[in-house]
Amino acid sequence: MVRIGAASLRGTAVVEEKWRAISAADFFYRNREIAGFDNPVRSTYTIFRELVENSMDACESGGFLPDIYVRLRHVEGGALEIKVEDNGRGVPRRYIKRAFAQVLFGSKYTLRQTRGIFGLGGKMAVLYGQITTNAPVHVISSTGGMERYSYKLMVDIERNEPITKEEVVERNHGQWRGTVVKLKFQGDYARARGKILDYLRHVAIIEPYSQLTFIDPDGVLYFYRRKTEKMPKPPIEVLPHPQGVDVETLRRLLERFGRGKLVDFLVESFHRVGRRIALKFLKKAKFDPEMDIEELLKREDLIPKLVKAMNNFDGWLPPDPSCLSPIGPELLEIGIKKELKPEFVAVVQRKPSAYSGHPFIVEVAMAYGGGVPAPSQGEINLYRYANKIPLLYDVHNDVSMKVIKKIKWWRYKLNPETMPIAFFVHVCSTKIPYKTVGKEYIADRPEVEYEIEWGLKEAARKLKMYLAKKRREESVKRRRATLMKYLPYIAKFATELCGEKREPDYERALERALASEARAPAA
Amino acid sequence: MVRIGAASLRGTAVVEEKWRAISAADFFYRNREIAGFDNPVRSTYTIFRELVENSMDACESGGFLPDIYVRLRHVEGGALEIKVEDNGRGVPRRYIKRAFAQVLFGSKYTLRQTRGIFGLGGKMAVLYGQITTNAPVHVISSTGGMERYSYKLMVDIERNEPITKEEVVERNHGQWRGTVVKLKFQGDYARARGKILDYLRHVAIIEPYSQLTFIDPDGVLYFYRRKTEKMPKPPIEVLPHPQGVDVETLRRLLERFGRGKLVDFLVESFHRVGRRIALKFLKKAKFDPEMDIEELLKREDLIPKLVKAMNNFDGWLPPDPSCLSPIGPELLEIGIKKELKPEFVAVVQRKPSAYSGHPFIVEVAMAYGGGVPAPSQGEINLYRYANKIPLLYDVHNDVSMKVIKKIKWWRYKLNPETMPIAFFVHVCSTKIPYKTVGKEYIADRPEVEYEIEWGLKEAARKLKMYLAKKRREESVKRRRATLMKYLPYIAKFATELCGEKREPDYERALERALASEARAPAA
Repeated sequence: MVRIGAASLRGTAVVEEKWRAISAADFFYRNREIAGFDNPVRSTYTIFRELVENSMDACESGGFLPDIYVRLRHVEGGALEIKVEDNGRGVPRRYIKRAFAQVLFGSKYTLRQTRGIFGLGGKMAVLYGQITTNAPVHVISSTGGMERYSYKLMVDIERNEPITKEEVVERNHGQWRGTVVKLKFQGDYARARGKILDYLRHVAIIEPYSQLTFIDPDGVLYFYRRKTEKMPKPPIEVLPHPQGVDVETLRRLLERFGRGKLVDFLVESFHRVGRRIALKFLKKAKFDPEMDIEELLKREDLIPKLVKAMNNFDGWLPPDPSCLSPIGPELLEIGIKKELKPEFVAVVQRKPSAYSGHPFIVEVAMAYGGGVPAPSQGEINLYRYANKIPLLYDVHNDVSMKVIKKIKWWRYKLNPETMPIAFFVHVCSTKIPYKTVGKEYIADRPEVEYEIEWGLKEAARKLKMYLAKKRREESVKRRRATLMKYLPYIAKFATELCGEKREPDYERALERALASEARAPAA
Repeated sequence: MVRIGAASLRGTAVVEEKWRAISAADFFYRNREIAGFDNPVRSTYTIFRELVENSMDACESGGFLPDIYVRLRHVEGGALEIKVEDNGRGVPRRYIKRAFAQVLFGSKYTLRQTRGIFGLGGKMAVLYGQITTNAPVHVISSTGGMERYSYKLMVDIERNEPITKEEVVERNHGQWRGTVVKLKFQGDYARARGKILDYLRHVAIIEPYSQLTFIDPDGVLYFYRRKTEKMPKPPIEVLPHPQGVDVETLRRLLERFGRGKLVDFLVESFHRVGRRIALKFLKKAKFDPEMDIEELLKREDLIPKLVKAMNNFDGWLPPDPSCLSPIGPELLEIGIKKELKPEFVAVVQRKPSAYSGHPFIVEVAMAYGGGVPAPSQGEINLYRYANKIPLLYDVHNDVSMKVIKKIKWWRYKLNPETMPIAFFVHVCSTKIPYKTVGKEYIADRPEVEYEIEWGLKEAARKLKMYLAKKRREESVKRRRATLMKYLPYIAKFATELCGEKREPDYERALERALASEARAPAA
């Protein structure tokens, strides 16, 4: 049963090497654990979130308030069936097959903020369903016209091509717009439930403008009502920033530009590069602004030189955050208040920053007291998000946890390991530096770390001031109670001693004294 | 400079979605941090190890004792140039272009133990070199015939195809056999040096049969001499095990089998399935052994049913570890003794086991004292390996660290946080459950965890016994010294008291008493 190659060297059996290419679908099929498909429990969670995130993106990129319905149920053969329905922009007919059954095909390969970036999650869900149940995915979609399209699809894994099992064009009554995805897979809801519910709660916090309905296999309904009609403005696509360019990107841009002058190429191909800045840069980098692009492409040694000069030049304008879609302090506060019902919330949005030419914005919040539980056994209550995706795994590798452990909390009279404090960190960027395809945690980037640190410190200052004020008010209250117990007698006694008849208005005097005390800074 | 789609809904600018496919090379180019190419420091380390590991595989799969030469040097433009030369089997001419310049093309897509599994590392090194310096990789290879082949190659990233810049056929004087790879990249050796030297030391431990020469950019020579001519036997390729099969694998195997009976298909397509076991299984699963394969393929509902039955059947033979190539206790001990010079080493090789049909073997060792340093600040000295690859990153996520933290060391009178103990864990398998494409750490698999735990416990028992014996010997030694100080006087005095002339042979009596004490178990 064992095939042995012909060659046998020095007494050992040597296998003949078989060289071959595999498709991208086959690669991710073979290595599905790197995309979050380790086992039935984890796969259940991953399928759930990948489909929900695609739906969210389909809504938000179209400017529609998300209304997403998810149903999980047990079907014959011990498998689970998931159905996810959204009111997003829908997938144009000509893209449906590949959008759901071809790995590395998608709408996310652009410079703007989206949840998905790999063009992989939805297809991996379909692929996992197929390899565990041999059943196709059923997709119904419409962009809101007179027709809607129903496809049953499978992935030809070896070729990375869609296989169409059924294709139906239906009349689209009421011009419905959105996408429905239905697929079967071998999963384990009982053990994935905890993470799934955790995920939904995280989503409800970061997206108070979304409405989510989930019916689980036991028939339990989880409903997250929309709390505001306000939605962050959708991100727009931008040109690449000159700071982060590499040889490959520059070469592609040069080839696409065709004939023309170098200075015009820079102005037209890059983000926030005007003629004045382009000329200043070219002068410093010692390139002729009139140089022809075709000439430049012929001289291959010039491209790395130009890249290096672009990376090192410090006169570029910082990237414009219009390609980003942060939540904003107002919405974040609504989400936190609604879900956690804390006594106090401090929300901080940092100014846009950039790493290697990728713009990013950090938003942080700290919630205190009320419905926020005290941490159990020195654990820290940390809610992490990246491009509105909750990150639930591998918290100890994450940059936010690293920052929280680094800050000297005693300076703020806070102790995250004993006090009822919850932290929220949201990083949004055109490129989140994920460490894994499963989007579990964010790699250390000094620029991102810096923004998180200063955001948290600002929130901590606000919380410190709130707590100091609270302590002062409480001490005043206690003092008033004590004084009010004895003052009437003292007043009476003093009045009698002086031989006066009318007791002084000791209540007013007390209020005045206590009010001035409450305004004073804490000792 | 910002492109905005035509549609504008509810007052917000909405971007038109651009759907497109990207190649596998483009995917990994865009997401290179998931393959270990985060920044210049990390990339320097990753390029070094990926090229060295390819060379190791090329030697071992051919049954040749590895002799690998690596040179790093600074070149013009601030870049680094790496040259890696091996005496491996060489790459056949018809595969050279794709083997070095096409992502997801390789010789590792088979069921046997190799260092590489993704067919990605070497190409990512070439790709990273290209995008940072625009220079091609230079490959010279020969399988030992009359000709050797020299190629200068680049990757067409958008198409995932090799671009040949130069192709030369040379006379192969002395019938040299092996491969030389030379490429330029933007790196940072000064800051990567620590990890690279750490890596080499780890390799020298796990591969005492390899010879490694490294010349760094400062001209410093690092030489790891071969310590033994013995080499583990090369792994052989095996058929898939029925336990871990999924719908996709079964369908591929069925299609390849063509016409024939179900029972014959099972016997010929799977690892360690004989006719008797196949019939027993089919009876239990209620499949007709005479069923025609073409019939089975037509009835698509039968495939998941058969998969489920195969996964659940408990009568299969365990996988044969001939597809694995563990180090073996003898070689592991040589490696550890040579590199760490400890006072004591306990090596344990566990019996082959399997998870989801993938056979694996765990080898562990514990070294004590001598050149083993005491851990600094409660850190644990842990050397992790997977298929002979040292794992240097993300130790806190790794299954081995988890096990070490779990074991109750006081039961063995050991304390890994204070005593000079080094741990070694080597997992070899046809499929290492890596969590990242960068091969940084191993996911939790209960079966793997179990083997590591019991391996370490056995090694701990050996170390405990050694230390108890050592303590006894030391106490005997101390006692002898004390007794020998007084015995002569006592003997003399006693002799005089008894009126005897000849003193008794107290030395012999003492040796007898102490020897019987040293044999007794420790109190």
